[in-house]
Formats: sequence, structure tokens, C-alpha cells
Amino acid sequence: MTRFALTLEYDGRPFMGWQRQNHGPSVQQALEEAVFAMTGERTAVHAAGRTDAGVHALAMRAHVDIAKPVAAFRLMEALNALVRPRSVAVLACTVVPDDWHARFSCLARAYEYRIVTRRAPLTWEAGLAWQVPQPLDADAMHATAQVLVGRHDFTTFRSAHCQADSPVRTLDLLDVARDGERIVVKAAARSFLHHQVRSMVGCLAMVGMGRWSCDDLAEALAARDRARLGLNAPPDGLFFVRAVYP
Amino acid sequence: MTRFALTLEYDGRPFMGWQRQNHGPSVQQALEEAVFAMTGERTAVHAAGRTDAGVHALAMRAHVDIAKPVAAFRLMEALNALVRPRSVAVLACTVVPDDWHARFSCLARAYEYRIVTRRAPLTWEAGLAWQVPQPLDADAMHATAQVLVGRHDFTTFRSAHCQADSPVRTLDLLDVARDGERIVVKAAARSFLHHQVRSMVGCLAMVGMGRWSCDDLAEALAARDRARLGLNAPPDGLFFVRAVYP
Repeated sequence: MTRFALTLEYDGRPFMGWQRQNHGPSVQQALEEAVFAMTGERTAVHAAGRTDAGVHALAMRAHVDIAKPVAAFRLMEALNALVRPRSVAVLACTVVPDDWHARFSCLARAYEYRIVTRRAPLTWEAGLAWQVPQPLDADAMHATAQVLVGRHDFTTFRSAHCQADSPVRTLDLLDVARDGERIVVKAAARSFLHHQVRSMVGCLAMVGMGRWSCDDLAEALAARDRARLGLNAPPDGLFFVRAVYP
Repeated sequence: MTRFALTLEYDGRPFMGWQRQNHGPSVQQALEEAVFAMTGERTAVHAAGRTDAGVHALAMRAHVDIAKPVAAFRLMEALNALVRPRSVAVLACTVVPDDWHARFSCLARAYEYRIVTRRAPLTWEAGLAWQVPQPLDADAMHATAQVLVGRHDFTTFRSAHCQADSPVRTLDLLDVARDGERIVVKAAARSFLHHQVRSMVGCLAMVGMGRWSCDDLAEALAARDRARLGLNAPPDGLFFVRAVYP
């Protein structure tokens, strides 16, 4: 049995998310079926993060154990040829030790959230960014975002379906930068709660619209109450961009 | 009758190109039908450039004459609400003098061509860039591109279906820049021949692969012979980015 680490890019639009679901296609299932088509082996593919429906990845990390002797490069080429829908690509594949685990060995994760502020609907970028029809004050968003950086109870920013034992997380970075009508929010932490990035981005957008002050955000955080969430941003603009390992 | 200038973004994937066709959807038809749905008027929408099937636009310029009294902002909003498929968006709309013509008043046009050099297929960017499975020498491509800048007979780089009276064009700019695995080619001229940008990019890719020298490109240009074309790049990576008016 050989363990392979995969670096994956995917377009989240056709999927119900990373994790296998009974009610629709998932990235995990697409990859597991490509592995089966190549090796005849039914084996699980584990990822660093279980992204939601419609969320994308530029460089998700995952691992899979395969009994059939196969070179890493050949495995990558075969998975790229066999995976369906073709909205998943294996960018890199390497052999790793048996104790390397895409999820449990991961030391840090980073996401990027893309916003386009304009009245006109998106065309080629539809589903790949959040279109907000008014201008947003990115400087105010960035300044306010720093309230969330550090170790906090993020109950307000956590989905009701979150299965994590604790709502406490340490947010290492939350940066907001603007380039014309485009705003990118970068977030990094050891791990995130379910919907945490989208919930933080949604509340920062409230700040950017001038509907929330910095104090409103601080109070929402301190309340530790999901009902105090200002806005949950749609999955469209969210990209998993990096997983860090020892 | 009021003449409106439109700034358009579109995703070229669902279309047979800008121009109305009997055999499939076009950007022109999509807009003309949206104008009809709003005003009841059958009127032509004219563009600065007639892009091919699968070619995109970040800021195409166009004009349309409308008899019904309507404010420019209201027209923009209505077209964005009515246009189908939703792969076209009106970014801006202004009233212009009756002698302003999107095509004939245009002094300069600019295109951008996006290449991604990697083995893995594209996912969210499929149809929005040309995936080339080997590295390309972008410095060699940029240096060689300068051979094409200036006033030349571009017969070699012109489609057999090109309807222009003369194959002579003055290319003002042809820049190649690399950022990691991404290469962007920028081209600017008063006007271009049919397939000219894709043909120039295809030949520059031959140079980037090391299959063509700078002399090969110069000889292909001097030959004024379509049969000497090295490679025509696919429409996927081509974006119309700018039209300049007095």
C-alpha cells in the first residue's frame, strides 16, 4: 500500500461540496471513482478541508492509499484523464509516508474570497465571485477585520451544522485589499469552523456598505450568538488556496 | 431617435461569436432581442470588433439607436435584466452624438490573450485560457514578438475568411509577460485582421516551445502566405479589452 499526496484544483460549481453526499455529485466521489477506474480499488480520498457546495479550490491537498504499484506521475496523469466531471484537476502527486494525513497533519489553511462591486451581473466570472451591486469601503473592512484576528470564540460566525467540538479558533490573518472594483479577502488559520470564512466576509461587507460599524462587529463576536450574524456571504467567491504541512 | 454607446462584457463560450448567425446564438442577437423586449423596436447593435466564436470581451464598445424615450441608466438596467443567455452584461451606457459609430469611430483596439502552461487540464478557467502542457520561454516570445510590431502585410496571420480589403495593418504593441505558469500576450492596433491575434499568439507559442526561431517568425511574416502559419491559437484565451475613441 502506497500513500499519495495530491494537490487539487477544482471548480465548485457542479458539486455539492467536497464530501460524498447521497443527493448529488461531490469532489470526493469524483476522485474516488477515478481511482477505481484506474486501479479497481475502492478507497477513500481524504482532504485538508471539506469545502461546501459551490466553493472552489486552487490548491486543496488530499491523500489516498493505493495497493496497485503505480508511479506518482502516472497516477496524476490517469486521474486527470479519468475524472468526471472535468471540473477537478490533479496539479501534483507525490509519495508520502503512511502517517502523513491530509487533514490531521495539516498545520494551517488559507482561503481567499473574491468580491466584484458593480451593478452589472457577472458573465465569465458568474459563480466565481460575489457580485455586490454597490461600492464597498475596503479600508474600513480591513481595519475592522483586525477585531477578528487572534484567539476567539467564533460561535457567531459558525454554521448551525458545524460539527467541531469547540467554537474557539485562532485566526492568524484576515486581510482585505481592493483593486478597482475587485476586493479580495485573505484568511489564514490552523483550522476554520463551518461557514466561518463566509460569515466573516458577509459581516465585513456590512461594514464596507456602511451598515455596520467596527463596534457592531466586535459586539457580534462577543455575543457568541449565531442570530447576531449580519450576513453570510455566498459560496461563489470562496477559494481554498493553501494547506501547510510540517 | 437617440444613440446609446454601450460598454459590454461577455463570456464567449455560449456564442458563435459577435455577429448574428443562422446556425447558433450570437452576442449581437442576444442584445438585439433584449432591446426588442424592452422597447418593441427591431434595431441593430453595432460593435467595435466582431469577435469569433468562443472569444470573450472585458470591455467591448457598441452602439444602438432607440426611438422610445429612455434614460441611459434605465436602458442599462433593463438590458442586464432581459438579456439571455446571461453571459452578456452592460457595464456602462451613455448617450452619444448620432455620428458616433462603435466601429467606424474607433481609433484603436486592444486584445489580451491568456495562456496557462501546465500539464493538468483547466477547471474553473476551462474555455477562458489556452492550456499549453509544456513550459514556454516568455522572454524569447516577447523579444520575437517585436518582429511583428509596425506596419506589415499580415497575410500569413489572416484567416482565409477575412473580408478586409487590405492585409496591411500597423501593429502598435505586442507584449508577452509571464507570472508563474500564466502568460499574458497584449496586442494593440488601430484594427486587426480576422484571426490575426490568435495567429500571432500561435506562432509566438511555437517560439516559446523552442520549435521556431526569431528568423522563422520573420520569414513566415515576409512570405505573406497563410500556409506558412505555424499554429493558430484557440479562441479560449482571447479577450477584447479596449476600444479607443476620439
